[in-house]
Amino acid sequence: MPKDVRKEMEKLGRKVLQDIEKGENPNIEIPIRALSNVIYDKRTGQLTLGTKTSKRFYFNVAHSKKFMQTLMVGAFCKSLIDENIHASIRDMYYNLKRTLPDSNENTFDEQSESDPIIVDMEVAIDVLREQLHLTTDRKGIVAGNVVIEDRGDSIDWSKLGSGGWSIPSTVDEVDFKKVNADFVLVVEKNAGFERLHEDKFWQKQKCVLIGTGGQPSRGTRLLIQRLNEEHKLPVYVMTDSDSYGFYIYSVIKSGSISLAHVSDRIATPSAKFIGLTVSDIFDYDLKKATIKAKEVDIKRAKELLNYEWFSKNPRWKKEINLMIEKGVKAEIEALSHRGLKFMSETYLPDKLKKGDFLD
Amino acid sequence: MPKDVRKEMEKLGRKVLQDIEKGENPNIEIPIRALSNVIYDKRTGQLTLGTKTSKRFYFNVAHSKKFMQTLMVGAFCKSLIDENIHASIRDMYYNLKRTLPDSNENTFDEQSESDPIIVDMEVAIDVLREQLHLTTDRKGIVAGNVVIEDRGDSIDWSKLGSGGWSIPSTVDEVDFKKVNADFVLVVEKNAGFERLHEDKFWQKQKCVLIGTGGQPSRGTRLLIQRLNEEHKLPVYVMTDSDSYGFYIYSVIKSGSISLAHVSDRIATPSAKFIGLTVSDIFDYDLKKATIKAKEVDIKRAKELLNYEWFSKNPRWKKEINLMIEKGVKAEIEALSHRGLKFMSETYLPDKLKKGDFLD
Repeated sequence: MPKDVRKEMEKLGRKVLQDIEKGENPNIEIPIRALSNVIYDKRTGQLTLGTKTSKRFYFNVAHSKKFMQTLMVGAFCKSLIDENIHASIRDMYYNLKRTLPDSNENTFDEQSESDPIIVDMEVAIDVLREQLHLTTDRKGIVAGNVVIEDRGDSIDWSKLGSGGWSIPSTVDEVDFKKVNADFVLVVEKNAGFERLHEDKFWQKQKCVLIGTGGQPSRGTRLLIQRLNEEHKLPVYVMTDSDSYGFYIYSVIKSGSISLAHVSDRIATPSAKFIGLTVSDIFDYDLKKATIKAKEVDIKRAKELLNYEWFSKNPRWKKEINLMIEKGVKAEIEALSHRGLKFMSETYLPDKLKKGDFLD
Repeated sequence: MPKDVRKEMEKLGRKVLQDIEKGENPNIEIPIRALSNVIYDKRTGQLTLGTKTSKRFYFNVAHSKKFMQTLMVGAFCKSLIDENIHASIRDMYYNLKRTLPDSNENTFDEQSESDPIIVDMEVAIDVLREQLHLTTDRKGIVAGNVVIEDRGDSIDWSKLGSGGWSIPSTVDEVDFKKVNADFVLVVEKNAGFERLHEDKFWQKQKCVLIGTGGQPSRGTRLLIQRLNEEHKLPVYVMTDSDSYGFYIYSVIKSGSISLAHVSDRIATPSAKFIGLTVSDIFDYDLKKATIKAKEVDIKRAKELLNYEWFSKNPRWKKEINLMIEKGVKAEIEALSHRGLKFMSETYLPDKLKKGDFLD
């Protein structure tokens, strides 16, 4: 993988050199990432970029600075790959920020200038920022009957006590040595992870248990995707029963609009939603443990109905409309209303046995 | 430990029973947690509670509901300890929430009612909520030459690849089996942790490396304190050079006002601040990588000068005043301006060699 990326980056640099040698205006071609070029691919079930591209020219007052910035970011990432080290996108910003000689002009004034250039690089040479050795903030924990190798260490996810393995921002160098599980359960809440982990749910149900701590990090999404793709493990997602939770599921499954260009590599289209559904509130007698939906929740729910992957699915449509109608939402922890072990011993086994998932 | 807590809880329950038997108004005595009863103990260098207490009575219209809630929370925690399971404070809320028979009265209406009762329990019987088997949100990662035992697993913090061990919310059951380190380095930013971890800083400098991901969780603070107390490891804290970073250091060292009642068990008074100081910006040529301080930063800096553990220390006073005067702040990642390995190979070794710490 790293070898190919290096080749792609060299190709980009050589193309610019050739422009100069030919006496042409040096330019870099970059696919457009605006909403107008984001499409929902029904076949793959993913958000993806269309075919529109734009060119960034050196001799163009409006492009010139960005052209320079693009080459600077490219050179920086190339050196990360050559030296085999990693840096955060903020490290990169500070590293590249300087004042051009004999001027008051900075290479970059704010990190908000360098961040989008990274995405430009991702789409221009069609790689992930992780492959450019750029790290993103880490979040997420995992436990299960899995042995991996990472940076020369052999790590057994079943032997990490109450802690679990902290999922790093880059997981493409992780080697799966042994995967003894039937499925992956992704839980939005750390508290849910802790309860299930303490009840040894992953052992009893033979699964990989992942806690995302809210919207999953890129590293966590990549890990979910790899377990699904490479080890054919079905992925079930558990979130709060509210618009935000449903959206987290949607991001794991179909990708997000802002990351549409990498959906095919970090989304898991076959992921299914195990709960909490709005119906669960009534089916599992959780009414006493609900929260009144606020105006913003209802507004967000109505927006979800605009996403065709929700609105074209009758069950999702029913659930979202039920939420709007009843004006309630519920957190994962609401299951504790029925007892602390209700989630691990009744609710989840019940759902798994019935195969009661939303697509 | 759990046995003592159980005994303390039984004592509390028995005292109420005796009140009833004696025909007295049943009551629970609880130390007051308001600012008026929070004092800074110069001798220990910690925020702590004074001696003022208040009584919560059963036969008192203003107290009655809270009295019931206190006993409910006590009974819940007692059953957690008896069953040896853990629950989040939100799990507890949902578990205890119900409508009293033949009434419209709920035991608890909002989690904001049950959370303070937990703190009441902590101060009333002088234990940590972790000892009551209540978990708090986890955050924080650790790596280093340390072997621990937790829930029957033996975990080697030096063999967890790029991931590290995810610090759970409860660390009092962690057994240290081997601690081969000279000090603990606590880093506010996950990105800083990742860079130092990749450069094997903990191996080269023989330390335990902890990333807190912002304000450290209670579990992380407890872990720092245990490494310091039980293994006599000096603790050095690295944060951004701004008021928020300095406050994080202050919380690790002296505790926080809201948790003053547990400072002696989760704060580390001997912790020292290794950087980034405001002087570092000038001493290490980081001026190009600073951020202009906002009005709120300056306001917060002035507030820090009201804390006597800052204002009575000439070096802290100088640093905070320098920040106000220059109107700049800097992030840990600013060190990358001098090269990605500058932090691990120059800045930190330099500081450690010189013993250049703020107290």
